[in-house]
Amino acid sequence: MSSMTGNKIKISVFGQSHSKGIGVVIDGLPAGKKIDMNKILAFMDRRAPGKNSLSTSRKESDTPEILSGLVNNVTCGAPLCAIIYNENQHSADYNNIIDTPRPSHADYSGYMRYDGFNDVSGGGHFSGRLTAPLCFAGAVCMQILEEMGIEIQAHIMKIKDVYDDKIDFVNIGKWNTAQKDFPVINDEKGLLMKAEIEKARENCDSVGGVIECAVTGLGAGYGDSMFDGIENLLAKNIFGIPAVKGIEFGNGFEATDLYGSENNDAFCISNGEIKTTTNNSGGINGGITNGMPVIFKTAIKPTPSIFKEQNSISLANKTEEKLQIKGRHDPCIVQRAVPVVEAVTAFTILDILI
Amino acid sequence: MSSMTGNKIKISVFGQSHSKGIGVVIDGLPAGKKIDMNKILAFMDRRAPGKNSLSTSRKESDTPEILSGLVNNVTCGAPLCAIIYNENQHSADYNNIIDTPRPSHADYSGYMRYDGFNDVSGGGHFSGRLTAPLCFAGAVCMQILEEMGIEIQAHIMKIKDVYDDKIDFVNIGKWNTAQKDFPVINDEKGLLMKAEIEKARENCDSVGGVIECAVTGLGAGYGDSMFDGIENLLAKNIFGIPAVKGIEFGNGFEATDLYGSENNDAFCISNGEIKTTTNNSGGINGGITNGMPVIFKTAIKPTPSIFKEQNSISLANKTEEKLQIKGRHDPCIVQRAVPVVEAVTAFTILDILI
Amino acid sequence: MSSMTGNKIKISVFGQSHSKGIGVVIDGLPAGKKIDMNKILAFMDRRAPGKNSLSTSRKESDTPEILSGLVNNVTCGAPLCAIIYNENQHSADYNNIIDTPRPSHADYSGYMRYDGFNDVSGGGHFSGRLTAPLCFAGAVCMQILEEMGIEIQAHIMKIKDVYDDKIDFVNIGKWNTAQKDFPVINDEKGLLMKAEIEKARENCDSVGGVIECAVTGLGAGYGDSMFDGIENLLAKNIFGIPAVKGIEFGNGFEATDLYGSENNDAFCISNGEIKTTTNNSGGINGGITNGMPVIFKTAIKPTPSIFKEQNSISLANKTEEKLQIKGRHDPCIVQRAVPVVEAVTAFTILDILI
Amino acid sequence: MSSMTGNKIKISVFGQSHSKGIGVVIDGLPAGKKIDMNKILAFMDRRAPGKNSLSTSRKESDTPEILSGLVNNVTCGAPLCAIIYNENQHSADYNNIIDTPRPSHADYSGYMRYDGFNDVSGGGHFSGRLTAPLCFAGAVCMQILEEMGIEIQAHIMKIKDVYDDKIDFVNIGKWNTAQKDFPVINDEKGLLMKAEIEKARENCDSVGGVIECAVTGLGAGYGDSMFDGIENLLAKNIFGIPAVKGIEFGNGFEATDLYGSENNDAFCISNGEIKTTTNNSGGINGGITNGMPVIFKTAIKPTPSIFKEQNSISLANKTEEKLQIKGRHDPCIVQRAVPVVEAVTAFTILDILI
Repeated sequence: MSSMTGNKIKISVFGQSHSKGIGVVIDGLPAGKKIDMNKILAFMDRRAPGKNSLSTSRKESDTPEILSGLVNNVTCGAPLCAIIYNENQHSADYNNIIDTPRPSHADYSGYMRYDGFNDVSGGGHFSGRLTAPLCFAGAVCMQILEEMGIEIQAHIMKIKDVYDDKIDFVNIGKWNTAQKDFPVINDEKGLLMKAEIEKARENCDSVGGVIECAVTGLGAGYGDSMFDGIENLLAKNIFGIPAVKGIEFGNGFEATDLYGSENNDAFCISNGEIKTTTNNSGGINGGITNGMPVIFKTAIKPTPSIFKEQNSISLANKTEEKLQIKGRHDPCIVQRAVPVVEAVTAFTILDILI
Repeated sequence: MSSMTGNKIKISVFGQSHSKGIGVVIDGLPAGKKIDMNKILAFMDRRAPGKNSLSTSRKESDTPEILSGLVNNVTCGAPLCAIIYNENQHSADYNNIIDTPRPSHADYSGYMRYDGFNDVSGGGHFSGRLTAPLCFAGAVCMQILEEMGIEIQAHIMKIKDVYDDKIDFVNIGKWNTAQKDFPVINDEKGLLMKAEIEKARENCDSVGGVIECAVTGLGAGYGDSMFDGIENLLAKNIFGIPAVKGIEFGNGFEATDLYGSENNDAFCISNGEIKTTTNNSGGINGGITNGMPVIFKTAIKPTPSIFKEQNSISLANKTEEKLQIKGRHDPCIVQRAVPVVEAVTAFTILDILI
Repeated sequence: MSSMTGNKIKISVFGQSHSKGIGVVIDGLPAGKKIDMNKILAFMDRRAPGKNSLSTSRKESDTPEILSGLVNNVTCGAPLCAIIYNENQHSADYNNIIDTPRPSHADYSGYMRYDGFNDVSGGGHFSGRLTAPLCFAGAVCMQILEEMGIEIQAHIMKIKDVYDDKIDFVNIGKWNTAQKDFPVINDEKGLLMKAEIEKARENCDSVGGVIECAVTGLGAGYGDSMFDGIENLLAKNIFGIPAVKGIEFGNGFEATDLYGSENNDAFCISNGEIKTTTNNSGGINGGITNGMPVIFKTAIKPTPSIFKEQNSISLANKTEEKLQIKGRHDPCIVQRAVPVVEAVTAFTILDILI
Repeated sequence: MSSMTGNKIKISVFGQSHSKGIGVVIDGLPAGKKIDMNKILAFMDRRAPGKNSLSTSRKESDTPEILSGLVNNVTCGAPLCAIIYNENQHSADYNNIIDTPRPSHADYSGYMRYDGFNDVSGGGHFSGRLTAPLCFAGAVCMQILEEMGIEIQAHIMKIKDVYDDKIDFVNIGKWNTAQKDFPVINDEKGLLMKAEIEKARENCDSVGGVIECAVTGLGAGYGDSMFDGIENLLAKNIFGIPAVKGIEFGNGFEATDLYGSENNDAFCISNGEIKTTTNNSGGINGGITNGMPVIFKTAIKPTPSIFKEQNSISLANKTEEKLQIKGRHDPCIVQRAVPVVEAVTAFTILDILI
């Protein structure tokens, strides 16, 4: 198991869905940074469940308790540890999956990795609940980045086949998605997306989507070569979010439909500064920022927990079995994953900048 | 700069396109492994340039010299270092880009990162030439993996809008792409792809494509959680290959078009073993292998070096300038990148398994 | 700040002396290991303060709360986090040192490192209190090592100029120091040592000493070369214990008084096994175990907190000031550091073995 | 095997005594630093063998060839690789030790670690010869440190029981040991040391000693807490030098003979700056520099290669055997290890500062 990442800003995530608590240690934060706890709670609230019919009805207070690292809400240079006690667990809902792994979950692979001792209850350490400490860590780092003039924002780019407005990679404005319950740029598209999610819920099914994230305010020249570029480090960490199956930077896979002459980002001088007229590169060349917005997209698969009966097997008997998942599950986690993508981006970028 | 990666099998890549030499150190190889040098040369030959009109005419002997780590071609446990001397450089071809960065190359971002001291000649450390030591390292690791019954193979999935045959994610056969000059499964599709590349070349332009890679023979239970899963580590390293702009596992972004009930991989018992009937997950759940083939796709952008005139700027004068790229450049690097993807996969997987 | 260490068994320590809590995350523990919590508490009790006049009168319940990583006291493969809430703090005792750093403490160096935002109260993150989570982590790892037949034991080798019995590096018996309040092999020497400590206490002064630690049951062939040998990794981690100023392996500095012919450990066959007749090497050659007991000594300086008036300065005024330390301080921490040395050794060795 | 170290300045050492070549990759050097190659050669020459009867008669040209990382002798930000071809090997000298390990060498522990596939010829990767690339790396880093006003100097503190002049930990002057064949402060003491070495040589024996190293010009506030302090990182790397068996900072083990009131370094104001009147701490508190000279001592055991007949065993037969070591060996390596200690200090300190 390795739930630690980072070179200078080191993140260590711990906890299982139904253990006593979950949390995170952030090691390497610069000293002297005032942390606004209300902003952190507001950020974490964006991923909190139980808001409406689109997400699980599990209520979590999710108020992090700061054990260390702050003195009067100012970072003191020592590792910052925040914990969240678990409550409102329904472990009994998971009794049947101990022997019957859920398709496309980590129940079976975890069983094999941990010799049958993995904690399956609520998904254990693989649970989406572990994104709460990721959000905490990201929210702390984001405040430091904001001081440096760096802004991170994400939106739902698509849910199933409903797309949000296409964004302009060169001029990223204010999306205000952080203020929205359903983080899209175009709220009408949002309504259509919600209808898709609702339809899936009614069918005891689920849907996924794509999250697009932009980082602005980064100057040129950040990132290291080959294995420590922006793309490498963001990809490594973004795949730490459950249900992520793909990541692409700039126009990503679409670049393969274009000629080089169409795909290349020509340089220009704009207001005396070196810019590019397009931004298919997503602000990164050779792993290093070029001063344009850093843009990437993350594929979130449909929630694997669905209420439709599924085919599984008995681990003990090696026989085929039907599985009926119980408990509380989101028909779509994309909207809740939006702040998680922002958070992971925040601590990754801060690690690179500091 | 950080061109080192790996936890137990550590790779350290060095060299610039026009420096005296390039090479790699592989630290942590198990002792007692017989290395077949002819197989390594054959592997490296797959990425070598100059074979036909589709690739650059630069001739490289590219024969690696082993400085250490082997005794009578058997690993001795000490770091294995291989170097390749550079020859046949035409540094003069790069005089004009010192002040005029090539669009969508790392010239400008590198200039900013290294305060103008980066070696732009031939692309410096960002050159595709650095994939030769990656291939060497991968070819060594692949021999050790083969002993363990693990096979890695890749093919060109598409060039621009021409697709190779769709593969069956559950049953990966032998693609024999390693034996082909143009590594596709269906050679007729290969001819169409080549025609696309040729067309681009004639237009002083370039094309990109997607490489699909499969790892078979991996049992279930490999990989670690959250930040050290198979997806995290493969993504981190694959983005170390120049021109990669996206990676997806299993059906990747396509998963977002499906319902959970369509996307989930139901378990079944096949010949007494636990398998899944589909493999949209690409053999990985929660970052850990589930025993099905590991499958991922890598987007390679069109070669940014094109012979069409492009818009650039003067770094010194901050004025807009036209740029005419000289030298020898591939209109498409996808076919040469196929063994590179296999190689990076090999050392990443060995690092996880050992 | 970096209070994380380890390659496979990764330890992340957090907390300040007077923050809400302190604790540790242990990432990478093998799954399926039954942890005996009573043994852990007994181990931690060995370093607990307040037992007698030799140590600080601060009372700490110090009962760790396990937040994650165990299911029914069995490791589940997820990161194990244990926290200890702080209580019984007397922060007011530290008001005077905010501006007047204590000699040979980290007050001033921390002030410079953290731009004046370091938490000086109780020594902050540099406090000896942080050795409680180290002991927790070590106690967990020690149980796994014991299963593998590996035993770690330490004793006070000297306090000031009073020495415990000299040990035989070749045949390490049972020292039973873990069962003693004052961990020496020869209790009569222990009484003399205690008298030295008592004398220092009466003089408002302090003393230090040397701790000798032996690891038995390790086979030959563990450790890696050059920078990842047993000596490198133990030294790196042992210097993580406050007040450590030196480490030596085997006969260490004394080797420099000998001729090679005296210092070399001749090989012999003993009961059919390859052994050495002496063990000046402390069980390690080239960073790698040779099958003999691993032995090392750690120098612990006299507690820098003394009640004698000392010369210091005012940080704000850059003037010389007298300092009178208040609070509760041990006249000697060597006896309490013995289990800490064992603990750090335990997680370091497990990291190497796993 | 892990012969890589460092966080930002990463060092990767490779080669065996009798492999084709040895060398080092330095990854992470700042760009734009002019490297004076003559100074590097002069530095490396200080450890070169064959100067007089005190050291091995093996002649090595040892001129490093720079493969990458420099453009016109200026760092370009890409990894710097330097190699040294081996020549003048007498591998036949080592035939007898393949089955009969040399006492207190890594032959046996390496045999166990690498399943008998380790390269014993000339000591393989454990050979003192591998300190040549360490010196190269250190010499490069030292030039960058000198620009920052930081000076590293070391001297032989003792050979067997002959001591050099005692140094003043507070005021480190110029020792000029870098200009001397035999790096002591007091040349008369040096003559006595040489006599000891000569005596050992005549007796087919060897001697060891202690090297003292001082780093001046470091401001206060460098180093990180707990596991990434100056002491941790220096100790980890210094133990990478063959034959090192101990390290102590400041007065080290001697601190255990003192009372706290004697050992504490009182603060004072000197020329308007915060200093300490003594420097028993060796310039480090809590792992972090306090602005005083960083001072540490390294114990180098007597060369284990001696020409006296020794007791060993046959690995194949598990019988006791006599061993007569052949080849060329130094009766003392302390004088040649002095620049090596400086070099390792240089790349460790640069890694911390950058």
